[in-house]
This record gives sequence, structure tokens and C-alpha cells, in this order.
Amino acid sequence: MAYFDAASAAPLHPVARQALLAALDDGWADPARLYREGRKARMLLDAAREAAAEAVGCRADELVFTPSGTRAVHTGVAGALAGRRRVGRHLIVSAVEHSSVLHSAEVFESEGGSVTRVPVHRTGAVSPSGYAAALRADTALAVLQSANHEVGTTQPVAEVAEVCRSAGVPLLVDAAQSLGWGPVEGGWSLLAASAHKWGGPPGVGLLVVRKGVRFAAQGPADERESGRAPGFENIPAVVAAVASLRAVRAEAARESVRLRELTERIRVRVPRLVPDVEVVGDPERRLPGTVTFSCLYVDGETLLHELDREGFAVSSGSSCTSGTLTPSHVLKAMGVLSEGNVRVSLPPGTAAEDVERFLAVLPDAVAGVREKLGAPAAAATAAEPAALVVDALGKRCPVPVIELAKVFPGVPVGGTVRVLSDDEAARLDIPAWCEMRGQEYLGEEPAEGGTAYSVRRLG
Amino acid sequence: MAYFDAASAAPLHPVARQALLAALDDGWADPARLYREGRKARMLLDAAREAAAEAVGCRADELVFTPSGTRAVHTGVAGALAGRRRVGRHLIVSAVEHSSVLHSAEVFESEGGSVTRVPVHRTGAVSPSGYAAALRADTALAVLQSANHEVGTTQPVAEVAEVCRSAGVPLLVDAAQSLGWGPVEGGWSLLAASAHKWGGPPGVGLLVVRKGVRFAAQGPADERESGRAPGFENIPAVVAAVASLRAVRAEAARESVRLRELTERIRVRVPRLVPDVEVVGDPERRLPGTVTFSCLYVDGETLLHELDREGFAVSSGSSCTSGTLTPSHVLKAMGVLSEGNVRVSLPPGTAAEDVERFLAVLPDAVAGVREKLGAPAAAATAAEPAALVVDALGKRCPVPVIELAKVFPGVPVGGTVRVLSDDEAARLDIPAWCEMRGQEYLGEEPAEGGTAYSVRRLG
Repeated sequence: MAYFDAASAAPLHPVARQALLAALDDGWADPARLYREGRKARMLLDAAREAAAEAVGCRADELVFTPSGTRAVHTGVAGALAGRRRVGRHLIVSAVEHSSVLHSAEVFESEGGSVTRVPVHRTGAVSPSGYAAALRADTALAVLQSANHEVGTTQPVAEVAEVCRSAGVPLLVDAAQSLGWGPVEGGWSLLAASAHKWGGPPGVGLLVVRKGVRFAAQGPADERESGRAPGFENIPAVVAAVASLRAVRAEAARESVRLRELTERIRVRVPRLVPDVEVVGDPERRLPGTVTFSCLYVDGETLLHELDREGFAVSSGSSCTSGTLTPSHVLKAMGVLSEGNVRVSLPPGTAAEDVERFLAVLPDAVAGVREKLGAPAAAATAAEPAALVVDALGKRCPVPVIELAKVFPGVPVGGTVRVLSDDEAARLDIPAWCEMRGQEYLGEEPAEGGTAYSVRRLG
Repeated sequence: MAYFDAASAAPLHPVARQALLAALDDGWADPARLYREGRKARMLLDAAREAAAEAVGCRADELVFTPSGTRAVHTGVAGALAGRRRVGRHLIVSAVEHSSVLHSAEVFESEGGSVTRVPVHRTGAVSPSGYAAALRADTALAVLQSANHEVGTTQPVAEVAEVCRSAGVPLLVDAAQSLGWGPVEGGWSLLAASAHKWGGPPGVGLLVVRKGVRFAAQGPADERESGRAPGFENIPAVVAAVASLRAVRAEAARESVRLRELTERIRVRVPRLVPDVEVVGDPERRLPGTVTFSCLYVDGETLLHELDREGFAVSSGSSCTSGTLTPSHVLKAMGVLSEGNVRVSLPPGTAAEDVERFLAVLPDAVAGVREKLGAPAAAATAAEPAALVVDALGKRCPVPVIELAKVFPGVPVGGTVRVLSDDEAARLDIPAWCEMRGQEYLGEEPAEGGTAYSVRRLG
């Protein structure tokens, strides 16, 4: 099996495994206790905190361990907002943040706060000027990821941090996807990360709050982790997480070059091998191991199953995948095609042969799915008679776009076709299809039982 | 080293260690993913949930895994209170709950809720009638531990659950100390527990919410663990935790008899071996492995260090231990002596020889501490001249009681002595000394620089 889903979770690093076993023997006791076992546990925890702080580039007393990256984000956002409540109740996030950030923002809104979601370019990146425009006198906090989890695009964190700093607003960086590759540059104020993304065990996140940043932890607290992460410390996992971080950092310079070359192969060759594919995300400013593309006329879940059968573990931001009926908010915010979406995220150590085999297998896998769905061939010539209205009500992604494509050859140049659909993904995918095909998207309007999307044929 | 602090944390059970290693290989991937690794992780998680539910005595879909017992309590209390907000904003807890419950109650009070703290008997147990008296029309939730973590007294959970059920109020049981010994009886509505108390790894708690109980999880949520425990699931630790629970349960019947006999030895022999000792907690209705006693004229922290030097890891609820200046709220609520407090909590498998060695070492350890502090001998005859006022201002526990005891032989029968003290522990320990010595405690009044405690000599 070739595991190409490191952005979800990386398998445990061998160094982490060793450290975990050792710390299970020496670090299981309560570090608050005075007896020898307690003191041993405390020493392990202190040493892990020092090493983690060094890797992050902060002071040890600025860093606490949390039960996950998600909890680090929840705690960090809530604590920073509460700490600056007197300044105001305004929060800035990008439109492509991880769901843990967006969920925090939703809770804040439900409690009366206001949230600005900064849009992104088609590459997935924000502009520093987007954050500058969003800043207000009552802005309590801004949040930005270091790199996007679905498309790998890296964000201009240092520039955004500078924009925020000038306005006196703290910036929380969600470094979940990038901390294994190196420290986050720039004058950020808070940082969250997740160990299982860099080959540590699950159960460990970290939250950094720079000295001088106003912070008021919310909810019940206790005396552990500076009052910022209640509950018995998970020292064996913390020790393993930090050991893994140091190990992947030691390999980062070499591995980043190697993985970047492998993902570049995918970026360049997939569009040549598979018709009607859109590779998404920034081609240059991106994580070394992540590449994402969308295949027209393909159902993401079926393609994932095909690839799984061929021995490849990848993920997808398409709708109908993992039990959700809405496409990825990231692809939506980027305005790119969401159907047939495949994210390949290579763990360190991925063999070039596995990537080559993936490229060998992909074209047939995509073609097979398209055939099952009755999708038009790339160079469609056979056409049904023109039908100016396509009724795709009750049909799920990617069927509405396939139906559109089927009738399109029969539409005269300058003519229009209306697609009736009640599928949320159509709102994203019909405009994306128009862009890929060089046709004009005229807009949408409510229609009985759903929405009508109008397309004019330009050529 | 003899580790006698199982109530804080138990070392990892060998079965848990094996299960953890296996699940690190098979359960590291994201269980929400469709590929094979994801499906394997999902199967492990589902199987662990089924097995945990069976051990608890609930349905699998009523149980979620949390990052710790503390988080299970925080989530359970907040969710149950929010779920019944329309009923009212009143919470009932016992005065001897774990700090995670009391911290939740404090947060609830700070948000405008009202809290009743049900008192306990001198044994540490609540009365069902105490809960009945506390119930109000606006009571949203009642909380009770299954057994006390500091003195081992088991609580009348089934009776209290029945009292609550009659009033239509859900009862949350904190089963952290007892779940390894068996399921919690009675008609409780919610239950929280912590795996590292039963030999599982740290990082795993569990929260059960019975079907039909109104529950609204607070804070940001995600799609994991029924929306009640956000963040990537810690499957290897969950698998290990459940394996350990099953293993300790299989040994529970035999081990409970064996440990009960060992703690009974301590209960009976410590008062014979060491003068001026109060064994606290219920002699019958108690956990098998826990026994707690307090030694007059002894400083808890120094005694712990002495015992550590002799190779025994125990804990203490005395003030000045673990950096806190207030004595344990549990001992305070029970109204028992807090100075020189020692909690012995034996892990399963404790050897009888270790307990015998503890009993052999304890008398000299206590005597050594008393000598250092200049405490009066048990049968004090030498007496300083009567001093009707003892100025112990600025002196920390156990010095105020030692000063009292020193002057007492010189006080005529019927005479009184006033102890001036600014130490919080004196408020608890001077009345406790009177009770142990059969003298009359007259009460306290404010005095310059602290409080004056008055004692009348009866004999």
C-alpha cells in the first residue's frame, strides 16, 4: 500500500516509537508528585518542552502541550479573543482555514462576535492587503494558516504578521501542515500545531502564546500546563511527539527537495496523462509533499475507491466523500473545480517508484469512473439534439456537469443552456467547467425545486 | 520502589502496552478516510467502543472517548447543564468531588449559575437525603463521584440516582476511581472516567451520555466522537485503554479481596504503631486499595520525602504539599485532621511484603519528622508553664497545633487557651486536634494579624 495522505495523519516515525516506549516506562506518573516517579515524569516533560520550544523558536514557558492540534486552535482562539475582549469583538480568519478555526469562528459569532473571512486567490493564497483591509479598531485577533491543508499553498505569514503588528493586533498561526518542515517565520503572536502531522503519535498538539500577548484561557482550568490545558499530562506521547519533530526536522532539508520533485512530476504529468484535469494550488509557493487536482466528470468517492483498490491511499475534497454533501470550503473559496478531487500528500520517505506507479494507474482509474458515469469523451463529437434546459434535479455531483457537457455540443454558438440542479456542488462546478472550457457562465437564479445555472456557448 | 499512589496514576498494564504497540501499527490513520488504513483504524475504534460500553454497561453509541477524565467531566457537566438550560441554572455537587467537577462548578457560577455543595459525613460519604434536600425546581444537573479519590470512601450512587430520577434530574457520576473495579450501579444518566487510573495510557477519558438525556456539547465541535470530543481520535491509546480495562476487570474479583486485606492491615496497625494518628474514610464502604491517615504534629511534605527516601511513593492532602498552601478540600469537608496526611493507594499486584515493609518504616519516619519539628511526645508530661495565648502567627502547618500541644499540659482543667494563627490549615486542624484529644473547641474569632482559635481543657 502506498500511503499518500500525510496531510491527514502521518504514520508514527520510528524515532517516535522508540521514545514512546521509553517514556511509557519513565513518564507515566503524575509530574505534580514529589516522589521519584513523579520527579522523573516532570523532568521528561520539562525536557520535551525545552526541545519543542527550540524547534518552534519560542521560550519554553510560552509553549503548552494540548490533547490535539484542534484543541490547541480552539484554546488559542478562545483565549486570545477573551484576553482582548475590551479591545473589541472582531475576528479575522482566511476563507481557507482548517475547520477547527472556522468552528471556533462560528462559536464566536453565535456569542455575538463578528468575523471577517478574508478571500483567497485562485491559488489558495491570501493577500496581506486582504488582511490589512479587514483590520478594524475593534479587531481582537487575526488567524492565518502557515500552509493550506487541502492544496498545499503556503501563505504569506510574515507579511500578514507585519500588517497585524502595525495595527497592534495579534496573529495566531495554524502551523499544523508546516511545522515539521521548519519554524514559522515572522512576528506572529500565537501558534498552534499537531504532532500526528509530523509523525508523532495522536493525542498531542501544541499551543504557543508569546509573552506579552493578552490571553485568558476559557472554561474550567487546573494547575497543569500553565492553566491552559487541563487534565493529566500525556507525557509519553509528548516525549514521542517532540522526538519525532526533531527527527523530521533533521531530514527536512533533504526530504523537501526530494518530495518537491516528486509532486512536481504529478503536477506536470497528470494534465498530460488525464484529459480534463485542473491542478489546483500555487505551483511554486507550496508544501513540498502536497499536490491536488480535480478531474472533470468524476465522482471523488468512486475514484478514491478505485485508487484504494490499486493500493493508493489519497483523500478528496469533493462532495459526497466521507459522508458530506458539500464540497470542500477550500476549493469553493478558491473557485476551482471540486468534482473528482484528489489530494496527494506524500510522507517523508515516499519512494519515487510509488509515485511513478500512481501516474501509471491514474489514467485508467479516471477513465473507468467516467465510463461508469457515462461522461462525454474529452473530444466529444457525438451529440444529442440540443436541449436548452437540462433537468438534473435530484442528481448528485458530478452528474449535473456531465449532463451539461452531454448536451453542449448541440448548443449553437451564442446559444444558452440552463441546468436545473438542487446539488450544492453544482454552484461551484458549473462555473468551474465554464472556465475550463472557455464558455461563458451567466449566473444562477432560483428555480422550482432547485437552482437554474445558465451557460452561454462561446465556441 | 514501592509505588503506592495508584489513585493518581497507575503504571501501564502489560496488556495495555501490547495493545498500544499493535494499534500504533494498525490504528494511526484517520478513521474518517475511505482507504484501507482508514477503515482499519475505524474498525479498531468501533471495536474499542463496543468493548468499553460493555464494561460500563451502556450502549456503544452512548459512549465517546475524550482526551482525559478531566475533559470528560468538563464536557459532561457543561453539556448537561446547557442541555437543560430551560429547566434552570442550578447545579448540585458534593463537597468532596474531584477538582475537575469543582472547577466546572466555579465556571458555571461565574456565568450566573447557582451551585449547591452537598456536605459529607466525617467518613467522607454523602447522604441521599442531602441530595434530596438540595434538589430544586430549577436543578439542571447533579454530580456525584462513585468513590472518593483522597480517602477511598464509596458513595451511595444508586440511592442518589434514584432520588434524582424521582425529581427528573440527571445524575452525572464521576467514576474515575472505581471503573476498573466494576460497573457503576444504579440509574445514573451520565458517567465520566479516566483510563490512566486503571492502567491504561494517559490521554484517554470516557464520557457516557444515556439516550434520552438532554445534552448540548459546548464550544467548537467537529464530526468526530458524535460532536462531543473534537480533534483527531487517539486510537492507539483508546485501544490500549480498553484492553487494560478488560484485563483489570478480569482480575478485579480476586485483587479486590487481596488489596482490601492489605489496606485493612494498614487501617488497623498504623494507629497501634504510630501515636496520634487518625485513619480517615469509611472503614467498610471503601475502595479496596485505598487507605488514608493523618499524623498529628507532622508536616505532610517532609513525611512524603522521608517515605520517598525509604522507597515508598505515596501522596498527601496536607497543605504545603505540591505547592499549595491550603489543605485538601476533601479533608476539610470531612472535618478531619489534615496535617501529616498520607494516602496509600495500592495498584493491583501490590506485594504483601511491600505493605509490611511500609508498616515497618512508617513509625520511625513519623517520629523523625516530629523530632525535627520539636513536637511533644505522645504521652507528654514535661510541660512549660501555662501560656493562655499561643502566638503562632507566621507559622505554617503543623506548627500551630504543635505549639498548642506544647502548652496544653500546663493549662488547668476548665482553663482555655487561645491560638493566634494566620495559617489556613489551623482552621481545620485545631478543631480536629480537640476531637482527637477529647478537648473542647470553643470556636474562632478574628484577631490582629490572623485568627484566634479557643480551646477549653476538659481533662
